[in-house]
Amino acid sequence: MTIYKAPLDDQRYTLFDVLGAEAVLTKLQGGEGHTRDLLDAVLEEAGRLSEAVLAPVNASGDEEGCRFDKATHAVTTPKGFKEAFKAFAEGGWTGLTQAEHFGGQALPNVMGTATTEIFQSGNLAWSLYPLLSEGACHAMEVHGTEAQQTTYLKPIVEGRWTGTMCLTEPQAGSDLGLLKTRAEPGENGSYKITGTKIFISAGEHDLAENIIHLVLARLPDAPAGSRGISMFIVPKFKVNADGSLGERNAVAAGAIEHKMGLRGSATCVMNFDAAEGYLIGAPHKGLAAMFTMMNAARLGVGVQGLALSERALQNSLNYARERLQGRSLSGPKFPQKPADNLMVQPDVRRMLLTQRAIVEASRALLLYTALQTDVEARGADEATRKQASDLVAFLIPIAKGVVTELAQECTKEALQVYGGHGYIAENGVEQFVRDARIITLYEGTTGIQAADLLGRKILQLQGAGFKLFLQEIQAFCQQHAQDAALAGLIGPLARYAKEWAELTTTLAQRVQANPEELGAAAMDYLYYSGYIALAYMSARGVAALANSSQQEAFKQAKRDTAAFYFARLLPRSLTHKAAIEAGVDTIPAIA
Amino acid sequence: MTIYKAPLDDQRYTLFDVLGAEAVLTKLQGGEGHTRDLLDAVLEEAGRLSEAVLAPVNASGDEEGCRFDKATHAVTTPKGFKEAFKAFAEGGWTGLTQAEHFGGQALPNVMGTATTEIFQSGNLAWSLYPLLSEGACHAMEVHGTEAQQTTYLKPIVEGRWTGTMCLTEPQAGSDLGLLKTRAEPGENGSYKITGTKIFISAGEHDLAENIIHLVLARLPDAPAGSRGISMFIVPKFKVNADGSLGERNAVAAGAIEHKMGLRGSATCVMNFDAAEGYLIGAPHKGLAAMFTMMNAARLGVGVQGLALSERALQNSLNYARERLQGRSLSGPKFPQKPADNLMVQPDVRRMLLTQRAIVEASRALLLYTALQTDVEARGADEATRKQASDLVAFLIPIAKGVVTELAQECTKEALQVYGGHGYIAENGVEQFVRDARIITLYEGTTGIQAADLLGRKILQLQGAGFKLFLQEIQAFCQQHAQDAALAGLIGPLARYAKEWAELTTTLAQRVQANPEELGAAAMDYLYYSGYIALAYMSARGVAALANSSQQEAFKQAKRDTAAFYFARLLPRSLTHKAAIEAGVDTIPAIA
Repeated sequence: MTIYKAPLDDQRYTLFDVLGAEAVLTKLQGGEGHTRDLLDAVLEEAGRLSEAVLAPVNASGDEEGCRFDKATHAVTTPKGFKEAFKAFAEGGWTGLTQAEHFGGQALPNVMGTATTEIFQSGNLAWSLYPLLSEGACHAMEVHGTEAQQTTYLKPIVEGRWTGTMCLTEPQAGSDLGLLKTRAEPGENGSYKITGTKIFISAGEHDLAENIIHLVLARLPDAPAGSRGISMFIVPKFKVNADGSLGERNAVAAGAIEHKMGLRGSATCVMNFDAAEGYLIGAPHKGLAAMFTMMNAARLGVGVQGLALSERALQNSLNYARERLQGRSLSGPKFPQKPADNLMVQPDVRRMLLTQRAIVEASRALLLYTALQTDVEARGADEATRKQASDLVAFLIPIAKGVVTELAQECTKEALQVYGGHGYIAENGVEQFVRDARIITLYEGTTGIQAADLLGRKILQLQGAGFKLFLQEIQAFCQQHAQDAALAGLIGPLARYAKEWAELTTTLAQRVQANPEELGAAAMDYLYYSGYIALAYMSARGVAALANSSQQEAFKQAKRDTAAFYFARLLPRSLTHKAAIEAGVDTIPAIA
Repeated sequence: MTIYKAPLDDQRYTLFDVLGAEAVLTKLQGGEGHTRDLLDAVLEEAGRLSEAVLAPVNASGDEEGCRFDKATHAVTTPKGFKEAFKAFAEGGWTGLTQAEHFGGQALPNVMGTATTEIFQSGNLAWSLYPLLSEGACHAMEVHGTEAQQTTYLKPIVEGRWTGTMCLTEPQAGSDLGLLKTRAEPGENGSYKITGTKIFISAGEHDLAENIIHLVLARLPDAPAGSRGISMFIVPKFKVNADGSLGERNAVAAGAIEHKMGLRGSATCVMNFDAAEGYLIGAPHKGLAAMFTMMNAARLGVGVQGLALSERALQNSLNYARERLQGRSLSGPKFPQKPADNLMVQPDVRRMLLTQRAIVEASRALLLYTALQTDVEARGADEATRKQASDLVAFLIPIAKGVVTELAQECTKEALQVYGGHGYIAENGVEQFVRDARIITLYEGTTGIQAADLLGRKILQLQGAGFKLFLQEIQAFCQQHAQDAALAGLIGPLARYAKEWAELTTTLAQRVQANPEELGAAAMDYLYYSGYIALAYMSARGVAALANSSQQEAFKQAKRDTAAFYFARLLPRSLTHKAAIEAGVDTIPAIA
């Protein structure tokens, strides 16, 4: 009952006109072939697959859910999921950004991000199966031996197998230092892994022949806490020397969770019962290894926020255009019809523009960040790569934390446009709200993102990325100071950038004096930063219109959306500033 | 898996210490017996029923849902719902606020409100069955003939039957003028009602012997639009002269909706197929008659917001105390345990205090408004009643609109405290989020509340209630200007009250010039007003501590919560003020 059309127009505009992705990418090492034409074709192909194959089984997948068979420990995914994965693998999407020598296509991360948005909009629950594989691939690419890569990574890239990341345990969530899963030395340098992991997405399913688990566990001589965690490869089926599947390993799903949403995604309890595993990376360095994947994973979850908001927006726009109810405040606009459509109501347009402003600025922020990860990986020189790395480190908690939180608002407002009809399952929009609710929780809650931004990226790393980002905004403001098209945007943006710097300095001093101030301010600082970062992206969206060949309607919508953002959403920073300045004394102990 | 304990302490404090309910109620006509002792006992009894009977079948009712039998058109409610309704009826709760000559107990509305909070916290889905009955009773009490009251109202008051309100049709939701259900003259002054109604809560169920539908329909000679709507009584079973049940009437459920939440509540499509009905009230005055119930219904939905937020708060507080994860920023607080509890994290306390501040101020606002409805109904003189009526009219859209919207935030934050565990159905908190999502939609969306506040209560009625409320706040500020206990609260409150008045005047002028400005500002004006109204309630909560016999821990929590509210939530008004001032030009047409 819901619609979805890949937003290729805005994606292309953002990638090429706003961010100049072609110029950036073709200058990177190995990026010669990454022309606009190629990337355009990839986007279109992703759109076709998502619209035709993924989107149609989104609602049915939610209704059906995954089924768990207690006797065999098997998980059956909803109808159409297996076929979709086959089409996805055959299209080469499982290896889109993977290296060519593993069978991948070595496309840039920014293209992975753009196409992932499209797939996640089509079917977020389904998209978790390949997403987790991507994380596992990345871990093995960076930390695996060549033999491990050949045996376990290539089949995933080829779309024959999938992967998981097994971190969480009942007593160890945000605090992985508490994890208890043990790894005892076994035969031939292998280990016996024993323990229970929970919340394992794609832990068991019927989409692929084998599942490769990357598992955090403790070696016998491990130090306590987070410095005593190692990473292991644990395949569902052991793999013979020739790459064929061997006997079943002692790892199995014990249950799947009944969740608020993402019901087509199998969230498994995984029991490891002396399962055979192989150390990957150095002993006791598993957490650090896992954290090398964290940026990609968090960016990916930020994209989930965008993806859900985009689809919610499309549907609520559609509904507001078609639903006839009431009359305009200034007299009937469709007098020949029984009522005007909802679109004549300013408050309905407010809800739609809120979504659109957040969606478009979020897309720009996420693609900007993704493009920086490409520069970080393949920039021409060390200094360029370092700068990009600093920017990425700074922007990830904002991109994850703020975009996922704003997705709560966007999906909520989309449902609100539907009135009571939004609450009815068959109309489809309530699924977006339920699906969205997980994204502020997994891959680090918003509180974790906030603490990472303020505690680590600003204070520990002395704001290296922050300074670069601020400089970029200031340069942008100077460049466009006299640009009539940006009148009304540059002034506030420049003022906020200045205030952001000052507020950060003051706050850093307060945290030095009392570390509890960090926790008291972090969330509001995250939002405050996010609203300014999105304002910058929004202003860039307008600035790039000058040299764009987009239609006038597109251009007018961009200008309107940015004006709306600056007038009605950016002022939220005022509230967050007040809360930041309120300090920890206003958050006393609770009896 | 969730806990619930009726918050009698805060309810009593708010009712008696803050609002002085005993002094107000005992002076009302017929209120001599409404002493604190009596009311206390009623609250306690409600708490017992809710904790022991309603709360235990809340999660199971959600999981089980209602079942619809296509062959018989019967609805089966979840296990325990029927027994709970029996206990409820036997306890006399179905007639708590109904007149004694109908078999009711004639207790004041404010007690109905306080006990309804308790029942709704226990089980919101279940509580809709008696809630809809209450609305139907109220309609028949005001508009029915004595014979209609004897035949249809008394059995509902006695808890043998239930009632419904049948308004919405597929094409007529917020815009009831579009409704099509017809009423043709039948035998003996009856009418034949034909049409389809949707979203009918408690339209069909197995809790009671008969169901009395109050149905909006058009007489043959009805003018078009909202001035041509009449109200009819349509019983499920016709009633014989002696009050016994006669033959089945031609009204039946055609389906029940699959909803995001409130799954234990039967939301029915009701088909009227020349069903026998009886005009209630004057012809063509049905919408006006329905609107006499609107205040009570909207206040009731505001209470639903409070009820869900209260239960969500209790559970997230509990979780934060028990969940061990991570360490305090300033060093371990429970060094002997594997980790500190979540409560040591300022950001977790921020989420808890946000909920508590909203819950306590919302409770005060709702009980304050409910008490005014008692004064409106039974005040000593005309002037007193008129003042109370103006206050109620002004406060209802705030109490409904803002409290239900803030319940979205409270339930969301409660889930966030749980981390990923909050997303798992068996932990129970996600149900609160799903259940809460309907309350900003039914009985008038938040947009409708906003338009009602600004368009009708402020502009059409020239802000009669607003002026009274402002005067009260100003008098309170003067009275406590030197009160050390309120230092830090009175200054901001007085400033905001002044700004509220000025902003309202300016806005009224803008709307005069362009009616579209109303729609562009209404939502932010609603929030702006709500945050100030809650600030006033919060400050009153502190002021009343001086003469209260509450424990010091309770007092400290009240002071902390108010300080938190003023420092961290009230500044949201800044954002809403900016949005109000941005005007309609920032909400242009959307292509």
